[in-house]
Amino acid sequence: MAACGRANVGTAGMNPAAKQDAVLAIDAGGTATRALIADRSGHCIGFGQAGSGNPTSSGLDAALQSVSTATTEALAAGGGRIRLLSAAVAMAGAGRGQVREGLQQTLSPLGLEGAVRIEPDLLAMYHSGTIVPDGHVLLAGTGSVSAAVKDGELDAVADGLGWLVGDRGSGYWIGHQVVRAVAASFDGVAPPTALTELLLEALGLSAQPSRIHGRPEVLMGLIDHLYSGRPVELSRFAPLAFAARHDPAARAILAEAADDLASTLTAVRPTESEAPVVLGGSVLTALLGTELAGPLTTVMAPATQIRVQDGIVGAAVLALRRSGVDVDGETFDRLREELEELRAGVDERTDTNR
Amino acid sequence: MAACGRANVGTAGMNPAAKQDAVLAIDAGGTATRALIADRSGHCIGFGQAGSGNPTSSGLDAALQSVSTATTEALAAGGGRIRLLSAAVAMAGAGRGQVREGLQQTLSPLGLEGAVRIEPDLLAMYHSGTIVPDGHVLLAGTGSVSAAVKDGELDAVADGLGWLVGDRGSGYWIGHQVVRAVAASFDGVAPPTALTELLLEALGLSAQPSRIHGRPEVLMGLIDHLYSGRPVELSRFAPLAFAARHDPAARAILAEAADDLASTLTAVRPTESEAPVVLGGSVLTALLGTELAGPLTTVMAPATQIRVQDGIVGAAVLALRRSGVDVDGETFDRLREELEELRAGVDERTDTNR
Repeated sequence: MAACGRANVGTAGMNPAAKQDAVLAIDAGGTATRALIADRSGHCIGFGQAGSGNPTSSGLDAALQSVSTATTEALAAGGGRIRLLSAAVAMAGAGRGQVREGLQQTLSPLGLEGAVRIEPDLLAMYHSGTIVPDGHVLLAGTGSVSAAVKDGELDAVADGLGWLVGDRGSGYWIGHQVVRAVAASFDGVAPPTALTELLLEALGLSAQPSRIHGRPEVLMGLIDHLYSGRPVELSRFAPLAFAARHDPAARAILAEAADDLASTLTAVRPTESEAPVVLGGSVLTALLGTELAGPLTTVMAPATQIRVQDGIVGAAVLALRRSGVDVDGETFDRLREELEELRAGVDERTDTNR
Repeated sequence: MAACGRANVGTAGMNPAAKQDAVLAIDAGGTATRALIADRSGHCIGFGQAGSGNPTSSGLDAALQSVSTATTEALAAGGGRIRLLSAAVAMAGAGRGQVREGLQQTLSPLGLEGAVRIEPDLLAMYHSGTIVPDGHVLLAGTGSVSAAVKDGELDAVADGLGWLVGDRGSGYWIGHQVVRAVAASFDGVAPPTALTELLLEALGLSAQPSRIHGRPEVLMGLIDHLYSGRPVELSRFAPLAFAARHDPAARAILAEAADDLASTLTAVRPTESEAPVVLGGSVLTALLGTELAGPLTTVMAPATQIRVQDGIVGAAVLALRRSGVDVDGETFDRLREELEELRAGVDERTDTNR
């Protein structure tokens, strides 16, 4: 159980039989699913976490199972005295009817009285960072996407078009460039690179000098590996570019990624805008930690830059707003602080269980 | 039937019951499969043609069916008096045991007495162009690959690594860049391009000004189309770059493709080499027909450039060589000339059947 002390204080004087009105917020990401139950003042009642909740990458059944697990864990803290009025589910590629129905059928038996509303993950990320109604958001994890937010809603979106057509500067894009750079080096059309050793090591291959059909044998082993998985899985090689970032090839890849992400943001953001820019995603966070982020940070001036971990606070903000709550600065800060405590509780519990 | 007059002349004085020794050459390409039966002097006895013979792109069963159809057609010209001593099958990604067994089981019932030998399609292409034992070959169709040939065998190969990892400057590469350029233009990170109208037209989409989820609605339709097919099918958009080659974006794509192909060739060919360069594939042929091929033709100097249509002549050369025939210039010219006549016969027949 992940109970938050302060939230219980708010119900101390109530009839023990009375139920407490609350909303359910879910951030269904590709790596983890987070569920947060909060009351109308932004007090956090329960938090839960499970595996991937993305129907596109994990399949609908697995995604719904994660949503169910995370919600059940979050509900356990309420001791059955919670009345879930509505749910906001932040999800990439939102809006397909089949997904919404599946979510409703998963959450109604758990006690959800109202409707499920799917929200773009991008919008939830933005609202995790700020309550300012107009601003911008840039994310780069496996994929990459940017948006302008106006009056609290998505106004214009750039990229987020997936590995084949877009996702410039994303983890997929970087990982793809890494494997192409290594292959080009084996082929003699690019100079040797430190990425080769890292990639072979990551795949458990060793660099033999032997040749087969006029090519290095290890290159053929590499090719077999790369084509046996789904293309999007190449994003797992993005960290190699960061590990080898003093190598010219790796450096060039990361610099181009930073340029690409800058141009994606610029496509939705007027130059010199002072509205806040919310930044998220593992690849963007890693890039901002290097000296290669220069062009990207320059392009964001003079806006305040806000980094966020995920979209769960924003999903709660959206859930409350859609229920008619005016989420002010105090409510927002309360959500963030109390969630922090709940997360710490979950992490501690996880550590103890190890 | 596709009988070649001159070839029959060669058997006129023989015992009518005696069988004529011959070899079977097959060029199993991604678009078409060609079968040629030739005697040991390079006289062409029969030619046949069928659909895709590439096990990777069409599946093994369909590929074997094409090989069977083309061979049966070629055999029909021999009137049952042919003794097929051996077979050479030119095929991309050659050498998998399952494919060789399938080919043997397909061809033995058709009268093949000897063994099937799979040859790299690249080597057959080279031998379609020249009997000079040392030289180079560069191909660009859906994929792209280059090789150095030494003593008639592959010595070093560059690229040919497939759409995900290599195939720089290929039809896939160009088609992929076309769709990315159009998407980037819709996203506002690249200027408008003439490719947009051509791509929408090719997909039967119309450019509506309406927006959905912060994006142009037509872009979402485009994305749905592009992700519903296999990635490699993007090569069908390569012709759009040629059609729009006076547009800056299209021009830049084709210029980079020409540069990439030049560097792939350079990876296996010493500068200033005078050995012949054999060139093939629809994309390379189209590129060489434009003013953008400059860097590519410059890099090939001072070598003789030889363009080939496919690998069927080369497959016959390999089949004869593997049977101990010393294929000289006369035999080579005879193969090429007589095949030309047989092909004309097949084309005429096809036209009549329409």
